[in-house]
Amino acid sequence: MRQSQLFTKTLKEVPSDEEAKNAILLIRAGYIHKEMAGVYQLLPLGLRVVEKIKQIVREEMNAIGTQEMIATNLQRKELWERTGRWSDQVVDVWFKSTLKTGAEVGFAWSHEEPLADMMKNHISSYKDLPVYIYQFQNKLRNELRAKSGMMRGREFIMKDAYSFCRSEEDHTAYYEACKEAYLRSFERMGVGEDTYVTFADGGAFTQYSHEFQTVCDAGEDLCYINREKKIAINEEVFSAEACKELGVIPEEMEKVKTAEVGNIFNFGRQKAEDVGLFYDEENGDKTAVWMGSYGIGITRMMGVLVEKFADEKGIVWPESVSPYKVHLVGLQTDDAQIRDWVDGIYTAFQRRGVEVLYDDRYLRPGQKFADADLLGVPYRIVASKKTKEEGRFEVVHRASGDVQYLSEEELYTTFAGT
Amino acid sequence: MRQSQLFTKTLKEVPSDEEAKNAILLIRAGYIHKEMAGVYQLLPLGLRVVEKIKQIVREEMNAIGTQEMIATNLQRKELWERTGRWSDQVVDVWFKSTLKTGAEVGFAWSHEEPLADMMKNHISSYKDLPVYIYQFQNKLRNELRAKSGMMRGREFIMKDAYSFCRSEEDHTAYYEACKEAYLRSFERMGVGEDTYVTFADGGAFTQYSHEFQTVCDAGEDLCYINREKKIAINEEVFSAEACKELGVIPEEMEKVKTAEVGNIFNFGRQKAEDVGLFYDEENGDKTAVWMGSYGIGITRMMGVLVEKFADEKGIVWPESVSPYKVHLVGLQTDDAQIRDWVDGIYTAFQRRGVEVLYDDRYLRPGQKFADADLLGVPYRIVASKKTKEEGRFEVVHRASGDVQYLSEEELYTTFAGT
Repeated sequence: MRQSQLFTKTLKEVPSDEEAKNAILLIRAGYIHKEMAGVYQLLPLGLRVVEKIKQIVREEMNAIGTQEMIATNLQRKELWERTGRWSDQVVDVWFKSTLKTGAEVGFAWSHEEPLADMMKNHISSYKDLPVYIYQFQNKLRNELRAKSGMMRGREFIMKDAYSFCRSEEDHTAYYEACKEAYLRSFERMGVGEDTYVTFADGGAFTQYSHEFQTVCDAGEDLCYINREKKIAINEEVFSAEACKELGVIPEEMEKVKTAEVGNIFNFGRQKAEDVGLFYDEENGDKTAVWMGSYGIGITRMMGVLVEKFADEKGIVWPESVSPYKVHLVGLQTDDAQIRDWVDGIYTAFQRRGVEVLYDDRYLRPGQKFADADLLGVPYRIVASKKTKEEGRFEVVHRASGDVQYLSEEELYTTFAGT
Repeated sequence: MRQSQLFTKTLKEVPSDEEAKNAILLIRAGYIHKEMAGVYQLLPLGLRVVEKIKQIVREEMNAIGTQEMIATNLQRKELWERTGRWSDQVVDVWFKSTLKTGAEVGFAWSHEEPLADMMKNHISSYKDLPVYIYQFQNKLRNELRAKSGMMRGREFIMKDAYSFCRSEEDHTAYYEACKEAYLRSFERMGVGEDTYVTFADGGAFTQYSHEFQTVCDAGEDLCYINREKKIAINEEVFSAEACKELGVIPEEMEKVKTAEVGNIFNFGRQKAEDVGLFYDEENGDKTAVWMGSYGIGITRMMGVLVEKFADEKGIVWPESVSPYKVHLVGLQTDDAQIRDWVDGIYTAFQRRGVEVLYDDRYLRPGQKFADADLLGVPYRIVASKKTKEEGRFEVVHRASGDVQYLSEEELYTTFAGT
């Protein structure tokens, strides 16, 4: 992509009510636009990051046999009344509206009830089980406070998966597979080391549920972690007893701020009973399906990655989610000869399938470097008159600041990865 | 994909209130699930079709320099008040709700106002123009009647593009490019011949707007078309005068039912004036941006394609949007030898990158063939004991019913396309 063509500009000013570092940097760099608190448009660069995060999660979900679909935003009141969750006293984040026919409808803050209900069409016998589905979908939650940028949205993209099993044993097998898929996903996004499977309040169905918490100063949660043993306990359920159960002692647990990037719920057979999702057992018994749900906050993850890796100069993307792999910065490109030469390098990168952002704008070098730092693409490559004369390119690694000098041929072999 | 693993089942029964052929077939075949009238979940097969339609449109929009983004569903009241379109008397398809803070919010039935407003951050000088953006986004419209299945949704996916230009001349150039991109898209989806650039009511800004209407018995519009001259006029504006302007005579126009699959609006400078989107001209004058908007109904297109091509046996997909290219139907696979052999063919297709749906279920051949017809994948390949012995595969073209017999090697060369 030629930066001169990219419609987004880096901005000096952000909306005065924006407090969160992640949103401030993402707005300034032109990744997102603030529509209102907790509601952000994804601009071209932002969409690329979100699609990369989605693709990582998609690959890991597909690998464990989960099938992708997309549910609707509009939901029926009756489904949620049946489980006692239509009331605003029970679920306090509903957005609701009214059809022209007069019927009330809800907007998706969760898809548990509609998707469990839908499965009545496709699950009738033990032979139809297990079923695993997932989606990337817009969730709408009427949050009273939405001050954490992309980390707590009124509108946000979530990956939610649902498992439908015959037995606790089958459920546990998928549950474990999904836990591993999540850990692989977080590892690929560069936060593997700092992300913990965390014991948390299990709600109505089980004593504990599992959250995936990433150590992050901007996080809204508090956890007690043990880095060595890779164990974490949410403050909500932290106790001597919980520690004992997990084989740690309270004194070796460190209290840290964390962001919840994923969670797993085990509903047992309760949810299916409430919704009326039964199947015929081999012996003819009508039995409720064993259900679980599995979430990853996709746009929240984008916010967490900014918070964790940004420095005073701007965003620092992990390579796996960066909108581009290299940022080619052309200097002295008002000289037609230089311009043609840098254009050629840009084209050569593209031909080799390297995702490259090409700063072909007529601006001062200082401004281009500042923009490159703000945007946070992993490798900045300068191509100037001097580069052309000397035949070696300065390559700066955004995260470490390490500088390499490479020949044109080395550039391609290094970044084309072939 | 192994059909035994696909969680969706073909269904005999559809919701009793479903009247539209497209929805009935898509529900029966397991492409979609009806949540409520005009609101359908996209199941795995349906999502694949939608993604194929999106990809065709994406490629054509990218090719004319349009940049992809995604706007939010939640919208601010103030933006629409400014243009006089917040009122339910003016726009009668609003879904609205209330934030916890008490402020009213709207759900996206259109993105014209929010995206024009957003551009104030990125357009300030004539040097920033032109800008072309697009998105695939969920639109929510509170339709009183939603009886046409995927062809008129309360919730549906639309591709909407917006152009921001300096002059009418620049605007017209993009407008023409977009018109061509649309025609290429419809051509690629198999409805090129039956899709007309149609003169229609231009609303407040211009005498005529352009609609893209596809001849379709289930369509909700009426147009007068001339197949030879490839000219169409919406009934709304059909008159002797309109005919004269387009160089046809009323007598040579045929009245047909059509479905509106796309539209183009020219706002001139009015929209930007209303929203307050101005730029500095070279001479310093503050000037309103020239705007256009360009829509294609993505999920509607899915409905139209079903309506147009389905026969009494089921759906017939154009190859470009079919969820899979070939449907491999294994027979006598309860014989382990046969099963292993058909599995091998499935694997060979996959290795060659052919999108293949593999019916590996233990069912009667008749039921498998009926399902294959219902699902509508372009090529059905039978692999049975007889096939193995004779070394030739029966390949049936779903649309024409033509039968070919191919050797295993020919199968791969024919369908791998390499």
